[in-house]
Amino acid sequence: MNTFEQRKKLVEERYAAHIAAKNTPIEGNGIYERWANPIITAESVPPIWKYDYNPATNPYFMERIGVNATLNSGAIKWKGKYVLMVRVEGMDRKSYFALAESDNGVDGFRFTGRPITMPDTDEPGTNVYDMRLTLHEDGWVYGLFCVERHDPAHPEDLSAAVAACGIARTRNLRDWERLPDLKSRSQQRNVVLHPEFFDGRYALYTRPQDGFIDTGSGGGIGWALVDDMTHAEITSERIIDARAYHTIKEVKNGEGPHPIRTPRGWLHLAHGVRGCASGLRYVLYMYMTSLEEPWRAIATPGGYLMAPVGEEYVGDVMNVLFSNGWIADDDGRVFIYYASSDTRMHVATSTVDRLVDYCLHTPSDGLFTGESVKAINRLIDRNEGYAARTEEMNQNQS
Amino acid sequence: MNTFEQRKKLVEERYAAHIAAKNTPIEGNGIYERWANPIITAESVPPIWKYDYNPATNPYFMERIGVNATLNSGAIKWKGKYVLMVRVEGMDRKSYFALAESDNGVDGFRFTGRPITMPDTDEPGTNVYDMRLTLHEDGWVYGLFCVERHDPAHPEDLSAAVAACGIARTRNLRDWERLPDLKSRSQQRNVVLHPEFFDGRYALYTRPQDGFIDTGSGGGIGWALVDDMTHAEITSERIIDARAYHTIKEVKNGEGPHPIRTPRGWLHLAHGVRGCASGLRYVLYMYMTSLEEPWRAIATPGGYLMAPVGEEYVGDVMNVLFSNGWIADDDGRVFIYYASSDTRMHVATSTVDRLVDYCLHTPSDGLFTGESVKAINRLIDRNEGYAARTEEMNQNQS
Repeated sequence: MNTFEQRKKLVEERYAAHIAAKNTPIEGNGIYERWANPIITAESVPPIWKYDYNPATNPYFMERIGVNATLNSGAIKWKGKYVLMVRVEGMDRKSYFALAESDNGVDGFRFTGRPITMPDTDEPGTNVYDMRLTLHEDGWVYGLFCVERHDPAHPEDLSAAVAACGIARTRNLRDWERLPDLKSRSQQRNVVLHPEFFDGRYALYTRPQDGFIDTGSGGGIGWALVDDMTHAEITSERIIDARAYHTIKEVKNGEGPHPIRTPRGWLHLAHGVRGCASGLRYVLYMYMTSLEEPWRAIATPGGYLMAPVGEEYVGDVMNVLFSNGWIADDDGRVFIYYASSDTRMHVATSTVDRLVDYCLHTPSDGLFTGESVKAINRLIDRNEGYAARTEEMNQNQS
Repeated sequence: MNTFEQRKKLVEERYAAHIAAKNTPIEGNGIYERWANPIITAESVPPIWKYDYNPATNPYFMERIGVNATLNSGAIKWKGKYVLMVRVEGMDRKSYFALAESDNGVDGFRFTGRPITMPDTDEPGTNVYDMRLTLHEDGWVYGLFCVERHDPAHPEDLSAAVAACGIARTRNLRDWERLPDLKSRSQQRNVVLHPEFFDGRYALYTRPQDGFIDTGSGGGIGWALVDDMTHAEITSERIIDARAYHTIKEVKNGEGPHPIRTPRGWLHLAHGVRGCASGLRYVLYMYMTSLEEPWRAIATPGGYLMAPVGEEYVGDVMNVLFSNGWIADDDGRVFIYYASSDTRMHVATSTVDRLVDYCLHTPSDGLFTGESVKAINRLIDRNEGYAARTEEMNQNQS
């Protein structure tokens, strides 16, 4: 075999082995189980997207269009498959969307078709990323994502970006109708479409922000109603989950995927950010809102649900967990799809029952160390009281 | 054996094992091969540079002068050896230069002699680092490096530095004649001497910058001509490789080692920097310039050539690859010497042919996500077309 054939064989064998790898759950704190292997990485992208397969024009079988990372993915159960709308980032830093699917939701994810050709608005986006998928009760699947453009007010600052919420809809996940970007008084990222009408209107989770990386004095997760997704405009927002000093969401926070309906209320997954000497730290947290008044929090478990562990700490943007996709299966299982350090996709599994239990029975953040210690003491008190009562009962029975 | 003898034996055995370790190439994307082990680390520095070997004055055989890291190294083929001018950083944060050499360029690197005693100018440098070595056609080997001094305009700000380009020359790599620092209107780092005269003048790759860490509104890789290296002064610069919004060189960029002459043009290796929530991210990229007009780019492959992987992500300054040394061998092999996260030195190997192929056939950065998707679709179209034609030919032949 010549170089071309040898390398082609090697690349394809490596890809096949990567795709075929099995995953295993890791027993943890009882709230969820992490799975051992990342489910999608840059290695998961098909070689035919990256290599020129013509030996005349690529005699060394070298990669022509490299992939840097696969990260923040939207998720949806679709025709029996677990489908992710993956943010694929090329070596040129530009992201695009691509569909990957699996039969069981925890391994065997494969990219299907080609990268999504997302129609532009009149003003092309330099970058698009972090799509949230919502099958709305109006029958459309909506994709809401961040569109970034160079800030025209600061042409000399090559890092000055303006972030807006791009909106598109589809019937098949593959062909997208682009709608006008969300109109809003402030920049918007992490906008999520609620799956149901509220008072006959579309409901959005928002994250009003003034600047781009720095959320300024605003922030918090907002709730806004719009009349028409084909000309979506936010006229008023109310903050439903605010930031607070010395919490895991001190610097900023944002809604993850759209919430899951449960008999006890809406289950929300979000991310919270704090600053430290090595930059920002992103963790995942949960809260619940009322079914009748989805802007009203009814459970706010303190602290984070998930934070980076092990290799999750390390990647292009260190110390980051981020989720914009989860799937609630008919049998009550929940698949939480999350990216670590802007580099690779993982899955953790739980159930609706367990996540509701977590939200309702985890103490809220007391905002002071003294309150945290009191909460632990109350737990120990209850545990010792229970142990004493149990022992007493056992003695009475014997 | 007493403590002194036991520890001395241990330290010397460890050093010998470290130096003797063999390296192996890792098949990758076809453009280059990374080698599995770092080639030089703090452990590579000879114990005699660090320990007091007198049992009367060092009964515990304790380290007296520790080494923190070995990083950004210039490179040159010299008398049949692969020689690196290593930036060695002590535990006191001060860097100095030291020579290390290897017979094969991929392992067995040993420090030789002593740390280089670099003569000062009238104004001593607080720190020196990142030397580029150029065997110029005038017959001298030049070393251009960064000299950093406390900014006299901001004596109260202990982090305010002024960076200038130090210049020295040698006939033997060991004994250096210091020349006056480069005169320039702005601060200068990453200055590199082109190996050939241009119009009878010396040519420099520059990186004009206003501030120190923040390159301000300027930046880009410049090209400047000077008449005399013994009194080098930049009077005008032209930018030959600019920065751009939402690319791998959005925040800053700089020339790596001096370019390699090929029949198709000059091969350049450079670094690009972007910002993210965990700080700056440094990656390596390439471009080519015309042989006749070395300031004119003739190939600009999009995205990065190399970015951190695995342990390369982690070190004193996270998420950094940096190269200021490569060697093009007579047989066409290219040894790319790069540091990861300001901590250790690595090597990747390729050939002039493959790197030229990479530069000429990798799509340029289209600057918009839509262009990136189009480039991938064109590649898939060609691959599917080629597969269809091959199948047709096979059918016709059977």
